[in-house]
Amino acid sequence: MPEGIKDKVAIIGMGCTKFGENFKQSAEDLMIEAFKEAIADAGIEKKDIQAAWQSNQFTEISIGHSALPLSSTLHLPFLPVTRVENLCASGSEALRAASYAIASGAVDIALALGVEKVKDLGYPGLPRENEDIVARGTIGRVIFPSWMNPNPGMFAMMAVKYFDRYGLSIEEGKRLLAKISVKSHHNGSLNPKAHLRREITEEDVMKAPFIAWPLGLFDCCGVSDGASAAILCRADMAKSFRPDPIYVKALSVAAESGEDLLYNAYDYTHVETTVRAAAKAYMEAGIKNPREEISLMEVHDCFSITELAIYEDLGISPRGKARDDIESGFFELNGKIPCQPDGGLKCFGHPIGASGLRMMYEVYKQLQGKAEARQIKNPRIGLTHNLGGQPPHAVCAINIVGN
Amino acid sequence: MPEGIKDKVAIIGMGCTKFGENFKQSAEDLMIEAFKEAIADAGIEKKDIQAAWQSNQFTEISIGHSALPLSSTLHLPFLPVTRVENLCASGSEALRAASYAIASGAVDIALALGVEKVKDLGYPGLPRENEDIVARGTIGRVIFPSWMNPNPGMFAMMAVKYFDRYGLSIEEGKRLLAKISVKSHHNGSLNPKAHLRREITEEDVMKAPFIAWPLGLFDCCGVSDGASAAILCRADMAKSFRPDPIYVKALSVAAESGEDLLYNAYDYTHVETTVRAAAKAYMEAGIKNPREEISLMEVHDCFSITELAIYEDLGISPRGKARDDIESGFFELNGKIPCQPDGGLKCFGHPIGASGLRMMYEVYKQLQGKAEARQIKNPRIGLTHNLGGQPPHAVCAINIVGN
Repeated sequence: MPEGIKDKVAIIGMGCTKFGENFKQSAEDLMIEAFKEAIADAGIEKKDIQAAWQSNQFTEISIGHSALPLSSTLHLPFLPVTRVENLCASGSEALRAASYAIASGAVDIALALGVEKVKDLGYPGLPRENEDIVARGTIGRVIFPSWMNPNPGMFAMMAVKYFDRYGLSIEEGKRLLAKISVKSHHNGSLNPKAHLRREITEEDVMKAPFIAWPLGLFDCCGVSDGASAAILCRADMAKSFRPDPIYVKALSVAAESGEDLLYNAYDYTHVETTVRAAAKAYMEAGIKNPREEISLMEVHDCFSITELAIYEDLGISPRGKARDDIESGFFELNGKIPCQPDGGLKCFGHPIGASGLRMMYEVYKQLQGKAEARQIKNPRIGLTHNLGGQPPHAVCAINIVGN
Repeated sequence: MPEGIKDKVAIIGMGCTKFGENFKQSAEDLMIEAFKEAIADAGIEKKDIQAAWQSNQFTEISIGHSALPLSSTLHLPFLPVTRVENLCASGSEALRAASYAIASGAVDIALALGVEKVKDLGYPGLPRENEDIVARGTIGRVIFPSWMNPNPGMFAMMAVKYFDRYGLSIEEGKRLLAKISVKSHHNGSLNPKAHLRREITEEDVMKAPFIAWPLGLFDCCGVSDGASAAILCRADMAKSFRPDPIYVKALSVAAESGEDLLYNAYDYTHVETTVRAAAKAYMEAGIKNPREEISLMEVHDCFSITELAIYEDLGISPRGKARDDIESGFFELNGKIPCQPDGGLKCFGHPIGASGLRMMYEVYKQLQGKAEARQIKNPRIGLTHNLGGQPPHAVCAINIVGN
């Protein structure tokens, strides 16, 4: 049994750009903006950083291979910089890599920075002449053709299955999911860094055009550009930088290519990698009852149904009972465990390499009591949940931090 | 000053495929072959592995994004798997990531696996219709057009500058470089896993067609498919698995985007990232005199001139004096510090994500006295040097291990 990394590493500074249609900012501009905020927040100088990890997924469309874009953009000559990528969970991986390096003794102060620009160029999945595939699978097989972005469809199937299993009509199910989006839009409306900053109503959600039935426009997160950064250090050094550092309690990843699930009659109403990653994270952090111990969560709400399934997969709501918690306001800003206090992917969009760190930015600010109009009362333990892939074929990264 | 990771992590098993034109093996076949050898060598079972890192550069042509290809291919359901990428140094990054995770306390036993298939599909740099760029730079600028593979040309400039600076005629310089390739081909001829397994003569090198003047065919490494894997664990557990584990002494990376060098009149006769990474690696490993303390090296000989510059950049040969060491046989199999005992990139080719781990495979076997026809007498300390990019724009990873 490994000893784990609980309380060995602290976050002492974070930065995050406004997410959105940042056509006037290059990826470099975004990186610099997030980085400058992070080092100012940490009260360190650039030369104090001993190593860095950069997360971005789509080399094909954005800043290319390696971590040299970070090296040149932030002007960090001869620093060790390394790129990590794990689909939509890449941002959490940058934080995990930097944390392990610090806890290992290799470095004392490290940078994790995630960035992606997708608004200008689109995901590589969009149809292009002479380029009819998006992803090459293992053994060279095509995973999906470019005319099919699988994500809305995959999660739409999850919604239908969930409604069916727990006896919700499509109308009831859609109305339940609508409450999730309404809640996140309310939170996002309070956040100057969010892409979408307006309240919506249940009726807006119900009447919106379908993207993948039964999911409509307001059940889906958007696409945006953005960057987010964290400065981490050895826990025993942290108070020399600031009085209110945030400590890493657990870093957990679980990945599954889908074969085990498919061969074992996967039920399509949950994401098993979330269940596995959560179990490991709670053990590492010493959390016995997450429903009582967690103060707030930022989860991977790429679709409203995803957020609902996560409530259950994280063991917050009992299986099949997320409905009760949604209806009672359990996850709202003034509820027991606010979920997506910053507005979530729903209001931030999803510049892939940045999202995991954007989630941590909100948790960090909340734990420090600096979340302004969105501030939660006396939070102690925050959780981020970052998902890559689709329900049966996914990478899930869960990080738990506390003050 | 960080405490470093010296002697915290051990390598207890390694595997490596034959490198070459492996048209009959998919990337998955290669991964499985390297993995099976590694776990058999470590004497562990698959279930003992607690986390894995996968290195591969070209998602565009080979196994795609994320580390799910490793998860599915090796059938490691719900294991944490993460992809790392740092150009041609990616393989060393997988080893570094796994080592940090172990030294941090997060996991006790981890897998690092690198793979790349390039023979079938070529580098993404080859011209394709409607695809006239290879790499998008930062700020969206094109780094180089697809009809120009910059590497032979960039390193050819280095050869010309080196010859000029140290008073070698082109003929003399070419003959000096030829000795490096002749040496590596001799070693490769003894290695059943090498791609190119034949001796060559200085005259073969001198008469070969030019690739980028003054570099000819035998000054350049080839292109091949391959995979390599390592099983690592906590150093204090290592002897419960095998009597002869190899211990990690230093893991060092330096990266430079070129701007500092270019603006400061870079001399083009050395690679500054190697110099910086080496200095850090020696400090971490406690090596004061590398020329006396290192037993063998596997370095990034993408071109013969690269290997020559590395001799000096690593501080083995004095600046400008590599010639003396080459001519005295210092780096030959029976010399003071054998370099490329396995044949190097020269004879293995360079399936990008795999190369750093392939280098470590040879060092590991040599330190255990299991390198058969290539065995060196009583080696104690081995060094791998893995370079990505071009002379002024590079990532350098140096790992030092010992028994």
